[in-house]
Amino acid sequence: MEEKDGYSTSPKFQDGVSRTPNINPDVLSAAGKKKRKRYSVNEYVEEILSGNRTILSQAITLVESALPEHYKTAQAIIEKCLPYSGRSVRIGITGIPGAGKSTFIESFGLYVSGIGKKTAVLAIDPSSKSTKGSILGDKTRMEKLSIHPNAFIRPSPSAGTLGGVARKTRESIILCEAAGFDTILVETVGVGQSETTVRSMVDFFLLLMLAGAGDEIQGIKRGIIEMADSVAITKADGPNKLMAENARLMFQNALNLFPRTQSGWKPLVLACSVHDNTGIREIWNIIEDYVNYTGKTGYFEELRKQQEVIRMHDTITDFLSTSFYNNDEVKALLPDLERELYKGRITSYKAALDLLNKYFRK
Amino acid sequence: MEEKDGYSTSPKFQDGVSRTPNINPDVLSAAGKKKRKRYSVNEYVEEILSGNRTILSQAITLVESALPEHYKTAQAIIEKCLPYSGRSVRIGITGIPGAGKSTFIESFGLYVSGIGKKTAVLAIDPSSKSTKGSILGDKTRMEKLSIHPNAFIRPSPSAGTLGGVARKTRESIILCEAAGFDTILVETVGVGQSETTVRSMVDFFLLLMLAGAGDEIQGIKRGIIEMADSVAITKADGPNKLMAENARLMFQNALNLFPRTQSGWKPLVLACSVHDNTGIREIWNIIEDYVNYTGKTGYFEELRKQQEVIRMHDTITDFLSTSFYNNDEVKALLPDLERELYKGRITSYKAALDLLNKYFRK
Repeated sequence: MEEKDGYSTSPKFQDGVSRTPNINPDVLSAAGKKKRKRYSVNEYVEEILSGNRTILSQAITLVESALPEHYKTAQAIIEKCLPYSGRSVRIGITGIPGAGKSTFIESFGLYVSGIGKKTAVLAIDPSSKSTKGSILGDKTRMEKLSIHPNAFIRPSPSAGTLGGVARKTRESIILCEAAGFDTILVETVGVGQSETTVRSMVDFFLLLMLAGAGDEIQGIKRGIIEMADSVAITKADGPNKLMAENARLMFQNALNLFPRTQSGWKPLVLACSVHDNTGIREIWNIIEDYVNYTGKTGYFEELRKQQEVIRMHDTITDFLSTSFYNNDEVKALLPDLERELYKGRITSYKAALDLLNKYFRK
Repeated sequence: MEEKDGYSTSPKFQDGVSRTPNINPDVLSAAGKKKRKRYSVNEYVEEILSGNRTILSQAITLVESALPEHYKTAQAIIEKCLPYSGRSVRIGITGIPGAGKSTFIESFGLYVSGIGKKTAVLAIDPSSKSTKGSILGDKTRMEKLSIHPNAFIRPSPSAGTLGGVARKTRESIILCEAAGFDTILVETVGVGQSETTVRSMVDFFLLLMLAGAGDEIQGIKRGIIEMADSVAITKADGPNKLMAENARLMFQNALNLFPRTQSGWKPLVLACSVHDNTGIREIWNIIEDYVNYTGKTGYFEELRKQQEVIRMHDTITDFLSTSFYNNDEVKALLPDLERELYKGRITSYKAALDLLNKYFRK
């Protein structure tokens, strides 16, 4: 456990109320031990609000747990944390393979933490089957950031739990915010699968690209460029610098051809280098500009509200689909119908009706 | 009725079988009358296969009908037509407001019809509530094309029928193909709503843009540019010509920065003018190149099969959602939960669970 146990400087909330740590000594000593104590929901909430990262970590583990009883506790914790959440900037970060996403996030996280922001890094990885590899991966990847007092790194959640990966990341954001983190970085881990999901839970979406319009660019799904609020060309250093500047211009011209984003914000492209430590601060400034701009227009709050409502409907749709496709009769019939469809012997509508009849007659 | 009644030159199929019109004289004379006769499913199918446009039109009307008995007949007709369908190039066409979509489609349709292709123009308009206006609109919009012997123009289907607008257009395509039409143009009518739907039912997607990166471009939804297999800058004539060429270069550069399409095809940008009759032929050549290219790689057939399977799943999801949101208890509870969500008092997951519990306990 490299996390700072019992770290508990009072987070400052916008409402001006300072929440002094209200720590039960039993809880603190328990948190120091390897073996986990069973806390009450109220104890969890108090510790989270006081900024206790160990307890925050454990609460996220409950959120991620596949056990229904864990999940029930987690939901109770989340509900109590909700009024203290939301006071952050949520930034989604994705990038093409080779763009150096981890090193960028570490540098960016260090800069943001260095100017006094409390930064939480969460990862969303629909493809990961176990957290074990990710934990090791994150520790290795972001060594400096993981020991920064203002930073909190949470490994990728594993797939296959209640309500899906998106639900877990979304709820982990709430807990991190309640613990006083005001800058949330959500990293996409799976390539080309999770971008839309991440976009739907963040305020600002940053895309990392490499100079050169060669094969590298093939690594991302089409449509992602148009989701970006900003594009950063990474590795703009040494002999690569001029190429990166050219790429920046090309991308900026290309983005200018796009219709404006829903927010009215005009996406900016810049070049940056982790090696030379250039462009990092500028990206943060752009994000601040974005937050100010969308704050004034009211879009910032409006988008968050929209995201909540959309997520509710998405969750419902997911559940309905899962219930449908797990139905035994549907499972038995589906392969035949897909085969017939492939051979062009039935219409997709007829196939759908056949399956729906099986399902609703159950 | 301006359609050519009883038009019935045998369409040539790729399997080399010439399907000689097998016309029941009663049917023909009935088709000539204003009042519609009730045909049997087999009569419908025979007439469609013989290329009878009046009967084709009537069958499409059955497909579009909201009456379940009409729909049942339509499904039987479609099933019998299915083996004769698929032998066409399906082209989706969308454009920003002001790009001159109708005049482009008329010119393009006339060119394609002129080189001997049998061209059907279908429109998809999720927003239209009545076909009346559309019929008048299409007649006025495409006067020359509508009387070309190789062309068939079908007005926008009305919204609110069984299985949605997408289902109807998809099934109308099948009927047109069975009637021997080998070039299907599917036009998006609603701006920014139907592009994804159209993309999901065509082989090739063409986007019409105007020169200038000004406010015009704001008329389309983000993401549409990345769906295009080709972009045509329209109105490249007179004083606009140079600007159009500049726009062409800019868009081509921008598209080069994008990841390749799923097909491996590299989207091309060209300028065209209906007024000067330039670029039209070139667009058709690009489409032929695309068909050849994707035919060789196998992507053409693969995409169509994928589209069928995806459409089946979409249809299922639509039905499940409709059943859910029409549930009385869900309808009663939903507004309260949305209000709570907006106020940030509950999580989207909790709101979803509350609704799902109501639904499944019914």
